[in-house]
Amino acid sequence: MKRYEALAHDIAESIRAGVLRPGDRLASVRHTSASRGVSPSTVFQAYYLLEARGLVQARERSGYYVAPHAQQVPPEPEAASQPQEGSVPVDVSALVFEILDASMTREVVPFGSAFPSPLLFPLARLGQSLAASAQALDPWSTVDDLTPGNAALRRQIALRYLAAGMPMSVDDIVVTNGALEALNLCLSVVTRPGDTVLVEAPAFYGALQALERQGLSAVEVPTHPREGMDLAALEQAIARHRPKACWLMSNFQNPLGSLMPEERKRALVELLARHQLPLIEDDVYAELYFGDKRPPPAKAFDSQGLVLHCSSFSKSLAPGWRIGWAAPGRYAQAVARAKLMSTLATAVPTQMALARYLERGGFDKHLRKLRQALAQQQTQFMQALGRHFPPGTRATRPAGGYFLWVELPLQVDALALHRQVLAQGISIAPGPIFSPSRAFAHCIRLNYGHAWNTRSEAALATLGRLVHEAM
Amino acid sequence: MKRYEALAHDIAESIRAGVLRPGDRLASVRHTSASRGVSPSTVFQAYYLLEARGLVQARERSGYYVAPHAQQVPPEPEAASQPQEGSVPVDVSALVFEILDASMTREVVPFGSAFPSPLLFPLARLGQSLAASAQALDPWSTVDDLTPGNAALRRQIALRYLAAGMPMSVDDIVVTNGALEALNLCLSVVTRPGDTVLVEAPAFYGALQALERQGLSAVEVPTHPREGMDLAALEQAIARHRPKACWLMSNFQNPLGSLMPEERKRALVELLARHQLPLIEDDVYAELYFGDKRPPPAKAFDSQGLVLHCSSFSKSLAPGWRIGWAAPGRYAQAVARAKLMSTLATAVPTQMALARYLERGGFDKHLRKLRQALAQQQTQFMQALGRHFPPGTRATRPAGGYFLWVELPLQVDALALHRQVLAQGISIAPGPIFSPSRAFAHCIRLNYGHAWNTRSEAALATLGRLVHEAM
Repeated sequence: MKRYEALAHDIAESIRAGVLRPGDRLASVRHTSASRGVSPSTVFQAYYLLEARGLVQARERSGYYVAPHAQQVPPEPEAASQPQEGSVPVDVSALVFEILDASMTREVVPFGSAFPSPLLFPLARLGQSLAASAQALDPWSTVDDLTPGNAALRRQIALRYLAAGMPMSVDDIVVTNGALEALNLCLSVVTRPGDTVLVEAPAFYGALQALERQGLSAVEVPTHPREGMDLAALEQAIARHRPKACWLMSNFQNPLGSLMPEERKRALVELLARHQLPLIEDDVYAELYFGDKRPPPAKAFDSQGLVLHCSSFSKSLAPGWRIGWAAPGRYAQAVARAKLMSTLATAVPTQMALARYLERGGFDKHLRKLRQALAQQQTQFMQALGRHFPPGTRATRPAGGYFLWVELPLQVDALALHRQVLAQGISIAPGPIFSPSRAFAHCIRLNYGHAWNTRSEAALATLGRLVHEAM
Repeated sequence: MKRYEALAHDIAESIRAGVLRPGDRLASVRHTSASRGVSPSTVFQAYYLLEARGLVQARERSGYYVAPHAQQVPPEPEAASQPQEGSVPVDVSALVFEILDASMTREVVPFGSAFPSPLLFPLARLGQSLAASAQALDPWSTVDDLTPGNAALRRQIALRYLAAGMPMSVDDIVVTNGALEALNLCLSVVTRPGDTVLVEAPAFYGALQALERQGLSAVEVPTHPREGMDLAALEQAIARHRPKACWLMSNFQNPLGSLMPEERKRALVELLARHQLPLIEDDVYAELYFGDKRPPPAKAFDSQGLVLHCSSFSKSLAPGWRIGWAAPGRYAQAVARAKLMSTLATAVPTQMALARYLERGGFDKHLRKLRQALAQQQTQFMQALGRHFPPGTRATRPAGGYFLWVELPLQVDALALHRQVLAQGISIAPGPIFSPSRAFAHCIRLNYGHAWNTRSEAALATLGRLVHEAM
């Protein structure tokens, strides 16, 4: 944990314990800086983080105050998960599709959705970019820009890696049909059917479906809602199960929202390198940080080309464009070839338009607005959770992304709850779809990526009432 | 064989045998109609087909004359292939990539290319369509138009099926990232690793790579360069190998260019239905017919939903857009789900733009021009083949598409020839990449989908000279 995070954590605990109460003024930056022996900028960062989490509010020329509902926000879950030991063949798809199919209409309140609101994206500017690049198309680009992808776009992606301190060649990058294709291709080049792959508990259901599709088994590794995968447990699992790969999200994990601390990412990569185990890293939410800078992925600590880093523009810029990429290290050629054999290539016009948009600037400005909107929506969501959910509820407070993970009282059955609320026009993502062993029966993932309004308030009230009744 | 095809075939034989010589006038339509007992329109169709094949030329108000080089055009191969019996695990990728990688630059004369010239496509109008639909984007389409795909586009595709006499529901269609994804998904839902699939001999290498990627074995079925897959041999292979699927192209097969006659397509579908064996039909070249109407696919005769029909706009309208589709019959939901698990969806802006282009008309006009250009290029190519290639060469004369298959004298080694000509800046597709048993050592596939010019003439002369030297 960084210094500003530790400070923010301490203040949040004081609020939760009632030492600091709604309306109380926080100590001044100068005072806190002196008393904690940290720089004023560290204190500012801590206060900013608390503000982003909805616990404090700034009043102009007056300082920071504990927010009215700060105490009511549910506490965070504390312990790492305790998944079932042993390797299980993955068979989650039927359940996942049952749940996703049921909630795929515009009429449903999308707490269970995997997508943020499309209204958060610069669709008009992207449209202009598409129009302009379509008019300027070189006919031969329809052949030249196939796999591994449009060179200008790969250069823009490489530039963003460079800005994040990760120099990379244009040739290290393979453009894909969204991050999901990148992840599937990476998985296919490091495993064979019947192999075992390590995943987080809970894990993104898309990862589990990819394992299922490729005939793989999963071993669930205990994962902490703030710290990410448990490295000691990971090492044991490697020794016991001889897996062929590990798959995880180190930044704003789906569904937990957890952000693995930097030093743990480094230790993770070193551990895997000792075992020469490839890491497939799904990093699609990294740009949606609420803090001061993009958290590095595990890939940043990879000196051996063992980390297959996958990301996309679907969550940060261009939903529905299906443009993602893999930076697969030593497996780059194998991934490009797997793509040539499965989908051949990614659409050229959208690749060109995205390259043009990125070249002309404005992406970072858009991202700042997007992050601010998501952070604010999280605050509103958390406060409403506090208003409507019963004691015994715990919720993660992610420092980025648009998902949070809610642990309901143990007796609540999330699958039954899903069916109940769906009948009321509300979707949720129940815990068991995030686990090959169908664990997390009392947990749900909620999406706060849509503007908060009276409809969402009413829906969350209904959800809270049904949770009460299920207890 | 239809009546006009039979007539054309007889006339072509007379030319080849020297009975009719360059400059000779064909009998008048009226005379031939009377003497053969066929309708005048049948005679017109036959003459048109001969013209498309470069064997005759029309002179205004005078009639049809045997073309100057008609006799020199190499004869067609006559016999079905005699592939190795038995099932082989597929392992062709390394060879395919070695050959494709080497020839993927603009500098190489693209006789080995899989793509026609991008200059043949209405890229400017497509660009306008992209611009207009990008400006009119409904933000929610970025969620609504994911798999199974944009409803307006699927409706346009369904309308084209209807026009071809194949009524189909919008829900029967799954939009994919090109036909290759459609084919891979269809294959994945009807097989498991280790299964056996029947393929043509020779077969499209992309099909073989898909089999390899999915851990399948192939059985090669004898295939005739004009008539397509041998049905008696197919039935034996089914009995002997208990395959889980058959994969073929009934229209303008890649690499042969063969067009399976309608009655054989019907018999094929009936045969497979008796064995309840799914047929994966790759039909990407069907719109590129030189005759009078789109040849029906095998799918047209499918009453049981056992034919998984796959096609795309990549070869007929929008190269590089990567928009294909599957009409997978009874497997439609399974294919949609497989796609959700592998690439999630196809890009929304290009789907919308293509729907808009199709709605506004002009596709058929473009297709007429495209077919005419390809037919003319085939003529030029065939005549140059006749000028430059040694006796003993045989070449298919496809009635559509842009590939032809050349059987060189037996002692020529096509792989060695590929390496030799590549050093001269010319690519070819050698026979062994079309066979899991590496057969067709003396055959090559040539692409005539690019405008004929002095550069192609010189390249074909070089190729012919090297064939001579290899004998």
